[in-house]
Amino acid sequence: MTKIAICAPATPITRDHAAALQNLVDKEFPQHSLMFHDQCFELEGHFAGSDIRRMEALIDCANDRDFDAVWFAKGGYGSNRIAEASVARMNQHARAKTYVGFSDCGYLLAALYRHGIGQAVHGSMPVSAASESGREAVRRVLHWFAGDNRGLEPSLDGKTPAAAFNLITLAMISGTPLMPDLTGHVVMVEEVSEHLYAIDRLFFQLAGSLPRVAGLRLGSITNVPDNYRDFGQNAEEIARFWCDRAGIPYLGRAQIGHTATNSVVPFGLASPHDAQ
Amino acid sequence: MTKIAICAPATPITRDHAAALQNLVDKEFPQHSLMFHDQCFELEGHFAGSDIRRMEALIDCANDRDFDAVWFAKGGYGSNRIAEASVARMNQHARAKTYVGFSDCGYLLAALYRHGIGQAVHGSMPVSAASESGREAVRRVLHWFAGDNRGLEPSLDGKTPAAAFNLITLAMISGTPLMPDLTGHVVMVEEVSEHLYAIDRLFFQLAGSLPRVAGLRLGSITNVPDNYRDFGQNAEEIARFWCDRAGIPYLGRAQIGHTATNSVVPFGLASPHDAQ
Repeated sequence: MTKIAICAPATPITRDHAAALQNLVDKEFPQHSLMFHDQCFELEGHFAGSDIRRMEALIDCANDRDFDAVWFAKGGYGSNRIAEASVARMNQHARAKTYVGFSDCGYLLAALYRHGIGQAVHGSMPVSAASESGREAVRRVLHWFAGDNRGLEPSLDGKTPAAAFNLITLAMISGTPLMPDLTGHVVMVEEVSEHLYAIDRLFFQLAGSLPRVAGLRLGSITNVPDNYRDFGQNAEEIARFWCDRAGIPYLGRAQIGHTATNSVVPFGLASPHDAQ
Repeated sequence: MTKIAICAPATPITRDHAAALQNLVDKEFPQHSLMFHDQCFELEGHFAGSDIRRMEALIDCANDRDFDAVWFAKGGYGSNRIAEASVARMNQHARAKTYVGFSDCGYLLAALYRHGIGQAVHGSMPVSAASESGREAVRRVLHWFAGDNRGLEPSLDGKTPAAAFNLITLAMISGTPLMPDLTGHVVMVEEVSEHLYAIDRLFFQLAGSLPRVAGLRLGSITNVPDNYRDFGQNAEEIARFWCDRAGIPYLGRAQIGHTATNSVVPFGLASPHDAQ
């Protein structure tokens, strides 16, 4: 069984979200246990509590020897504000844990991976358990916690280290103290609700700042707003264009994104997860 | 007089925009001459012509000994795609010129400043000449071309080097081969049409990546879209927060932005412009 602590480093979830995940786990994954930190349901301005409150909740979960994993409840924006201070406070129990989330929570995955703390994992989050399509993605994480690899991103080969990020999250991390060394990695990127010109701009940034990665894979680019003018290239053409300019091998699509098909990407080398 | 060549490194203007600027110059600034490159009015996908076409038009203007200045017609997105290749093609005539623009054209100002080519200048652009409020900003540039400093950003002291950027443009440049050395500079930033959480995210990026600048000034943050939740800090509070975290002196407001009060910021040391 996996003992999972849930906190919200960015924005809050509701009690209904929590009940939906608890219900799913009770019915289908009775080998796991969930602990929702009270901070998940708090609200201060944009965030699930103040920076200090969110950081302390994360540390409560990470540093507690009784949990195997920390699952980030929801993205939305805000984990960047606490990532650097949080990793500095993590103890030996934190270093033995698995951390799962994506989207805005990529700031934390980056910081954890950079500092070699536990196992950072791109995967869907508790907030998604309230919809049928979201539960498909959430089940992949719960299977993976149970040692079942059916939810791993299909291109992972166990030989090349990988990392997965929301595109704007990775661009914002680039050049900051959160940025891990991605040399030699397959980097997967996905985006939601950004114009194609903004996608192009983000690839420009990464093409000029990424180290010598093994290659790039493009996840889902969804909910692209209409612009006053058609951009003239689709998302995959944009990715190929910038990879060609930067000399980064474009390796094709990745099964990640803000969709029901979002799959699990353990950062680093994806070896079959040991059942806990 | 100043002989000004106009091209469009990002998106196109219309013949009406050009006529409005020509009319303004004829009436109020007869000492200046304007040459609109045909490329200003072309359209390919999102851009004012292909990358090659836009770059060639810029080089036509920059490398021509008959012009004193190159004025970028409009921002919108796209100058980043041609900036690095363009500066590599510039000759000795290009190095004697003044280059004026802002917003997306900050990519070019950055590249020119990094490579010590001519005088990069933040200032309003020809596209604004079609509205009365826009003409107020355009007149500042035309006065400055005439050796009249009334349109200079008021905080410029002639002793501390300065640079001015659109916030997302600067964040995208950071860590790329376009980034100039801004050590010791007063950096002014402005933004338009971005959510406050995105403003916060951009300041996070800059707080983690800027060198030891002399300080930061906040220009106008305009047309902020409503979010589903109030952010909890206004734009100036966000700027102060990140400056405090990063140890960057926050120096107050700057009179730049996507507004009628947008003023002129010559990159580097703002000495009184020599009338040409």
